[in-house]
Amino acid sequence: MLILGIDPGLATIGFGLVMKSGDKYRAIEYGAITTAPKQMIEKRLEEIYDSMIELITKCKPDCMVIEEIFFNNNITTAIDVSMARGVILLAAQKCGIDIYEYTPLEVKSSVVGYGRAEKQQVQYMVRLMLGLNETPKPDDTADALALALCHGTRITNYR
Amino acid sequence: MLILGIDPGLATIGFGLVMKSGDKYRAIEYGAITTAPKQMIEKRLEEIYDSMIELITKCKPDCMVIEEIFFNNNITTAIDVSMARGVILLAAQKCGIDIYEYTPLEVKSSVVGYGRAEKQQVQYMVRLMLGLNETPKPDDTADALALALCHGTRITNYR
Repeated sequence: MLILGIDPGLATIGFGLVMKSGDKYRAIEYGAITTAPKQMIEKRLEEIYDSMIELITKCKPDCMVIEEIFFNNNITTAIDVSMARGVILLAAQKCGIDIYEYTPLEVKSSVVGYGRAEKQQVQYMVRLMLGLNETPKPDDTADALALALCHGTRITNYR
Repeated sequence: MLILGIDPGLATIGFGLVMKSGDKYRAIEYGAITTAPKQMIEKRLEEIYDSMIELITKCKPDCMVIEEIFFNNNITTAIDVSMARGVILLAAQKCGIDIYEYTPLEVKSSVVGYGRAEKQQVQYMVRLMLGLNETPKPDDTADALALALCHGTRITNYR
């Protein structure tokens, strides 16, 4: 099963494509989509949408896993991330792939085994589970891989 | 000039198409796009996007005018409206039309002449300026027409 993890954002969208075979995981491709703050919001949203369509069409994942948005003290950031999240969900829907959502707490619980784990502990487990020598950068990319792994561990019981 | 006003939302998106000729305004078409709360969020976003593309393609407005999102005590509503707003902006961008944004205060100032005007005063001015016998329903539709009229009054100085 090929799982596409997405850490949503307006300036940086982390992505991580993970192949799950039995209880083994392999990172197929990972990185980040970025948009320039000086551009108009509608142009940035279009770039995100087009990049997502291209990524899904090229990689053909079985599903997309995206982080749930939480209350954020910075309401402007929450609005921006939500707009980006809207076009990311639309892209997955247009490509006909299933979508799963997890909270940061669920990701930490699944990957580290502890819902209040530190970022460094999550990144360590991402490296370990995927056999990577270094933590993928930026953090959004590591978070996207963690989301894909979280889904991988949760479907173990069903397949 | 043909102006498309949009009051964004996830369950109800008000729209109002206004023709401005000199300092005269005429309502060409108005109504609301609705989505069912029981549907998956990605399906609702797709319906909004497809409906917006259809509306813009059919009506060929010169521009779209959309309400700016403000801090809302209900963060869940703000996130939902922002996701819908993201796909609405994407639809306008994909159709190549200009986008303008106004705050509720700017709309009230332009249409009623007073930034703290009541909803009823805005609706009265919408009826008066467009020569309508009744206030368009739902309120989202009247708000969308007010947005289009707001833009109309603001471009007076330029054309």
